[in-house]
Amino acid sequence: MPQLNRQFLLAKRPVGAATRDTFSYVEKPVGEPGPNQILVENLYLSLDPAMRGWMNDAKSYIPPVGLGEVMRALGVGKVIASNHPDYAVGDHVNGALGVQDYFVGEPRGFYKVDPSRAPLPLYLSALGMTGMTAYFALLDVGAPKAGETVVLSGAAGAVGSIAGQIAKIKGCRVVGIAGGADKCRFLIDELGFDAAIDYKNEDVVAGLKRECPKGVDVYFDNVGGDILDAVLSRLAPRARIVICGAISQYNNKEAVKGPANYLSLLVNRARMEGFVVMDHAANFASAAQEMGGWMAAGKLKSKEDIVEGLETFPETLGKLFSGENFGKLVLKVK
Amino acid sequence: MPQLNRQFLLAKRPVGAATRDTFSYVEKPVGEPGPNQILVENLYLSLDPAMRGWMNDAKSYIPPVGLGEVMRALGVGKVIASNHPDYAVGDHVNGALGVQDYFVGEPRGFYKVDPSRAPLPLYLSALGMTGMTAYFALLDVGAPKAGETVVLSGAAGAVGSIAGQIAKIKGCRVVGIAGGADKCRFLIDELGFDAAIDYKNEDVVAGLKRECPKGVDVYFDNVGGDILDAVLSRLAPRARIVICGAISQYNNKEAVKGPANYLSLLVNRARMEGFVVMDHAANFASAAQEMGGWMAAGKLKSKEDIVEGLETFPETLGKLFSGENFGKLVLKVK
Repeated sequence: MPQLNRQFLLAKRPVGAATRDTFSYVEKPVGEPGPNQILVENLYLSLDPAMRGWMNDAKSYIPPVGLGEVMRALGVGKVIASNHPDYAVGDHVNGALGVQDYFVGEPRGFYKVDPSRAPLPLYLSALGMTGMTAYFALLDVGAPKAGETVVLSGAAGAVGSIAGQIAKIKGCRVVGIAGGADKCRFLIDELGFDAAIDYKNEDVVAGLKRECPKGVDVYFDNVGGDILDAVLSRLAPRARIVICGAISQYNNKEAVKGPANYLSLLVNRARMEGFVVMDHAANFASAAQEMGGWMAAGKLKSKEDIVEGLETFPETLGKLFSGENFGKLVLKVK
Repeated sequence: MPQLNRQFLLAKRPVGAATRDTFSYVEKPVGEPGPNQILVENLYLSLDPAMRGWMNDAKSYIPPVGLGEVMRALGVGKVIASNHPDYAVGDHVNGALGVQDYFVGEPRGFYKVDPSRAPLPLYLSALGMTGMTAYFALLDVGAPKAGETVVLSGAAGAVGSIAGQIAKIKGCRVVGIAGGADKCRFLIDELGFDAAIDYKNEDVVAGLKRECPKGVDVYFDNVGGDILDAVLSRLAPRARIVICGAISQYNNKEAVKGPANYLSLLVNRARMEGFVVMDHAANFASAAQEMGGWMAAGKLKSKEDIVEGLETFPETLGKLFSGENFGKLVLKVK
């Protein structure tokens, strides 16, 4: 049995960005699993923009992390002790393992994954919540039709890069907005996007005029802020905007910047709609199967940005908000 | 034949509110109808918030009014000369007659109305574009179900007062937001709303908490601005926001105030969608028939705020933006 469990607890509710001070780092003895509980050795943790929202004491789609609790994180790990009839030692599981070396507790919402079928980090990206988010947000809310123009922000990020590839599979013209020449080149050369707009080095409205001459039919928004306003100014009639995230606004110390161009919705009879992936849980299995098929056929690529060491958690999480991550950000625990 | 045609021409594109200076008042000889044209004596003109948008040189759902052109307005009038096979002298028509005593031209988009079936101003309110806007924006975009809570801003205005009554007919709990005790009393006592929130004399968020304990399922927005943000903070899951107008923002000299609380759409998987009434033209006839039936049954009341005198046009139009109008604002030409 392991002896030591390193944990990051939520120490205070951050104002602005979460930093090392936001958490308290503790080392505790590993707990024993009680009835119906399992003990999991955490292997990979998923770092997601949504984690910033979980730190706020605000009404949302999920309760906030309590002060003094282990910071919530999805992850994959290996069962090393089990008192639960559905899980055996040696099983690999996906669930809310928390930012720690070991999870002990009831496996609520957990499911098994098979490391012989795909590398474990993939179960946090294309084959995990990231992929499910991309799949259902794009197809159910955005509902793109072949030939339509789909624009994505955060296009080189975890969700955006997958959603854009799905839009290509569906026959759309796909334009990604990302920061920096490397990311833009990656979108076109590696992922097969039709075009990319580098928001760090060009005017986004000008880029949209150039790359979306017929306007934007579907906008998949991960960032909010000025980029959302830019796209609102270039909507096609009956456009659909998927509000999947707003990473530019999550660390705001003051009020969120609302989209000043929202009346473009009126003029264009367009729609802006929010999305929460858990609403689609009943259909995850079939979606994952379809995604796996696309990956096997070489139509869908998943890029993970893996950082090693649980101890780097606060700084690694910060990469999401500075735009430094490239693909799905994963923390390798050891 | 009449001799004199008083006209208000758009003289300049206003910055902020339209005032008398925005228009040039001219008196011209009445024109003769050419081939396929008709001459109409204008009787009542519809004054609408949308007119402010038509004065801007901006891409919209309809071209702007050109400088030096007669200001666009819908209205009802009487045909006094006709070279068009479908229209005879004595017919009453509804169409874009313009802010003038007489319309001469082809009756594009015109249709006949019957003054023996309803007073003429009603063809500009419940039985005209106002009623069609209320009907289709509420039922097609808002799609309220019986038992749901429907909130409307500008609730004592032309569109809001009708949309709220339709929501009552559909079995919803209906809460109107309006300015002043008189309007709020009118909503409850005369129109049968369940509750009213007086935004001039109480905190709108507090009012929404009190009157919408289960949250807001459908929000019919005519005003934008702070009231839109207040309602966003009180959405029920899967709420639908109909963006029908944003009168608080039309006279802005600076950027529109975007809804800072728009991420409530994400958390609540809610939708915000724009609406343009002309998209539903194919179904106007059946909607007007249903509306007429409700009026005959005493379930739907139409209130017109009729001001006399074409010469008062600029100041009368201003009543819409100061919140002074009470019901559908109509200008009686003479």
